[in-house]
Amino acid sequence: MSDRIAHAGLKSKVMTAQEAAQFINHGDMVGFAGFTGAGYPKVVPPALAERMEAAHERGDEFKIKVLTGASTAPELDGALAKANGVEWRMPYQSDPGMRNRINAGDSYYSDIHLSHSGPMTEQGFFGKVNVAVVEAVRIKSDGSLILSSSVGNSVSYLNAAERIIIEVNSWQSEDLEGMHDIYNVGLPPYRKEIPILNPGDRIGSTGVAIDVDKVVAVVETNAEDRNSAFKPLDDDSKAIAGYLLDFLDSEVKAGRLPENLLPMQSGVGNIPNAVLAGLLDSKYENLTSFTEVIQDGMVDLMDAGKLAVASGTAFSLSPEYAARMNDNAADYREKIVLRPQDISNNPGLVRRMGLITTNGMIEADIYGNVNSTHVAGSRMMNGIGGSGDFTRNAYISTFVSPSIAKGGDISAIVPMVSHVDHTEHDVMVIITEQGLADLRGLAPRQRSRVVIEKCAHPMYKEALLEYVERAEKATPFMHTPHDLGASYDFHRRFLANGSMKPEA
Amino acid sequence: MSDRIAHAGLKSKVMTAQEAAQFINHGDMVGFAGFTGAGYPKVVPPALAERMEAAHERGDEFKIKVLTGASTAPELDGALAKANGVEWRMPYQSDPGMRNRINAGDSYYSDIHLSHSGPMTEQGFFGKVNVAVVEAVRIKSDGSLILSSSVGNSVSYLNAAERIIIEVNSWQSEDLEGMHDIYNVGLPPYRKEIPILNPGDRIGSTGVAIDVDKVVAVVETNAEDRNSAFKPLDDDSKAIAGYLLDFLDSEVKAGRLPENLLPMQSGVGNIPNAVLAGLLDSKYENLTSFTEVIQDGMVDLMDAGKLAVASGTAFSLSPEYAARMNDNAADYREKIVLRPQDISNNPGLVRRMGLITTNGMIEADIYGNVNSTHVAGSRMMNGIGGSGDFTRNAYISTFVSPSIAKGGDISAIVPMVSHVDHTEHDVMVIITEQGLADLRGLAPRQRSRVVIEKCAHPMYKEALLEYVERAEKATPFMHTPHDLGASYDFHRRFLANGSMKPEA
Repeated sequence: MSDRIAHAGLKSKVMTAQEAAQFINHGDMVGFAGFTGAGYPKVVPPALAERMEAAHERGDEFKIKVLTGASTAPELDGALAKANGVEWRMPYQSDPGMRNRINAGDSYYSDIHLSHSGPMTEQGFFGKVNVAVVEAVRIKSDGSLILSSSVGNSVSYLNAAERIIIEVNSWQSEDLEGMHDIYNVGLPPYRKEIPILNPGDRIGSTGVAIDVDKVVAVVETNAEDRNSAFKPLDDDSKAIAGYLLDFLDSEVKAGRLPENLLPMQSGVGNIPNAVLAGLLDSKYENLTSFTEVIQDGMVDLMDAGKLAVASGTAFSLSPEYAARMNDNAADYREKIVLRPQDISNNPGLVRRMGLITTNGMIEADIYGNVNSTHVAGSRMMNGIGGSGDFTRNAYISTFVSPSIAKGGDISAIVPMVSHVDHTEHDVMVIITEQGLADLRGLAPRQRSRVVIEKCAHPMYKEALLEYVERAEKATPFMHTPHDLGASYDFHRRFLANGSMKPEA
Repeated sequence: MSDRIAHAGLKSKVMTAQEAAQFINHGDMVGFAGFTGAGYPKVVPPALAERMEAAHERGDEFKIKVLTGASTAPELDGALAKANGVEWRMPYQSDPGMRNRINAGDSYYSDIHLSHSGPMTEQGFFGKVNVAVVEAVRIKSDGSLILSSSVGNSVSYLNAAERIIIEVNSWQSEDLEGMHDIYNVGLPPYRKEIPILNPGDRIGSTGVAIDVDKVVAVVETNAEDRNSAFKPLDDDSKAIAGYLLDFLDSEVKAGRLPENLLPMQSGVGNIPNAVLAGLLDSKYENLTSFTEVIQDGMVDLMDAGKLAVASGTAFSLSPEYAARMNDNAADYREKIVLRPQDISNNPGLVRRMGLITTNGMIEADIYGNVNSTHVAGSRMMNGIGGSGDFTRNAYISTFVSPSIAKGGDISAIVPMVSHVDHTEHDVMVIITEQGLADLRGLAPRQRSRVVIEKCAHPMYKEALLEYVERAEKATPFMHTPHDLGASYDFHRRFLANGSMKPEA
């Protein structure tokens, strides 16, 4: 194991997780590695949580500010949330315990675009970063790090932090070396062009150069990434994927997309995986992906020779696929590039390459605004993640969701979304299992008809059309007619009765 | 005059505006030059409006689809709106007649980010472009065009259109030649890096190469740009500018901004001009601007030697300054670059250079969402313009407005904005004449306190704090507490009583 630490000075810093956790104190801002349950530190955070709990038992305060790449896992967000040890957190999270702390008001949460989170940290906008805690596959003799199954914001945090703690994880394959492409965009006014023209372009180094004098602890582990299993594809996901693939076919026929499409981005989850499964059976060849996370479906597409290359910042694989990746990383690294998230999600690169983006949503309204984050306006689910980075700059942006949830008590199509994460100016296509609404070039009043007709569930169509009629009577202004006294009636019924359905 | 047309074939196409307007037919999509009342065609659109009115009198239909750079002028939007000749329009507009048609439901309006509008047209997302109507300073012997006081989307429309009509305007100085930097970004998958590292970098040609075979008419004019006068600076604008400049000073002191700041972007209007006036009296030297429009205040800053270079896509000058520009274009062109709007507003360049952005707003809410476009949710004012292009990718984004309007009947700070153009994820700083709210790194519930304390007018503070208290009782979810039954009470009072003030 310890041959993974080839730098003598750093080898002398090897200690237990409990010892390493002593370097993190109440009030510290800590930048953790980790993105969608991949490549996060796995033993120092639980040891830190123990420290917090011990302090709280003594009646002492112990809360920290937490920076990550995106969501992590039970050992990090879960453990710190359980200890009520998070004063403030940034950016995306999806841990149930962390979410509860945020919604209970125990932890403050800044929900920031993923591509902004690293640069804003380096710009000093959140204050001083005291500690960076990252995971590496190995430490090279020059002290540079080979990161593991995610890059995320680790480079930014390693740059910005006063102290560095490294977990060297022998569960992660050493063959990941060569998959990373580490490039430091830097800060204005010194930024240059990022010279990536295609998703597979490599522009940086495989390792991360660090200031070894900042390293206070190295901890050895062999713990697995979170890697949760995907559910089998359901009918709604297959239907949504089918509409999207038909739409892409028609765009190719119309000459608005090349024969091998354009680089694909997709959010994490069932529907994106159904789209990838659909591509597996499609006529498309030589596809590329420029996205955040490498998912099971992309691995299948690579194995089938249909996906030429995938660029991301992290894996999000099921245990079976994670094992396959670990065993065959030396092969996959020819087709997979892992980048810092301010590059994987960079708005300039998304715009330059012209992505087809697919992201999930909680709800969309009749005018094409999308809510990705809040239930009924107040309750945070996960966060905006990278959906804004990709959507705003996409060649074609799509949003997907089943038309109903909770057995029909929630409609994903509402008169007015209760929180806006993607504005009407950014949303081109909305897809549910009912159909696809192509909103490009439509004014709001045209959009409302199309969204209801194509995307709403039949049990909600009448109530939505009634709202349209009501709104167009309530105001003389016909650009975006709203009745502000009734625009949240769906949500208010849900809050009062547990269902958005019109009262009998 | 006609020595401005150096291409023999195009010289033979010279005709009257009335003759040229015959090439535009009912149902056509027409891409017009023009951006903030600069560089728009001035005689063909009124002739087209006459054709429309004559058709309408005969009982025939005559409506077209209108593409522009941004707002134009009475001769274009005004005349076509008066004739009720616009079926659909894209993007930004600010003409009173056009706005009324949109709000009356006579014209559909797609309010699209300015940097997206040209590429989406060339991608074919709006359908075929039948005619491009542009303004030029002169036509060179090779048939290429020297554009006039704006570039806007003219290059995209000249590329995409089947037929081209050129107005050659001798009111515009021939010395504008050399000010334009024409570079065609192209479409994916063939886009390359745009090699601009600093606002003054020139990467293209001074003229626009066109397919001369597509030119159906050339019309000679000598009509002035719209050029409306700015109002004298008022106390609110000066106060807002003061807060912004103090904030920039403190950012420089904290080491988060360089000594000569970063490139500045500002929307059009009184407050941005007040900021520019404030910079004139400041210690800052060697400033740069990367923005949409070149305004009076920038000319003053250049004359004072404080602004080294300004990049934009158009002028928006008062008549006095427009005359000065016309007389001294040969000097100013050393310091001014006019670019296509998908480059002046390019998200990748905004991010790369790290802009300080300042844009106006209609209202902001306690959680930092901003409405730039709609009064009380339904009524369109102008449009989002380039504010999204700049804000989302800014180094520091600021939004400015007086805290009240209509003598206090409207509060610019509300519990929940009635339309979202800039999400909580995008808004860093809000400034009114009351103060400055720095929202960086604050969670929504922290933001609400700061926004109300710093930015709300005293006459609305109590009602806003009451809403906060009410919302935090109405829901158990403390991330973004809202009471959806009361979140629009301010707007509903305004619609019912003409005032947002709490009822006595």
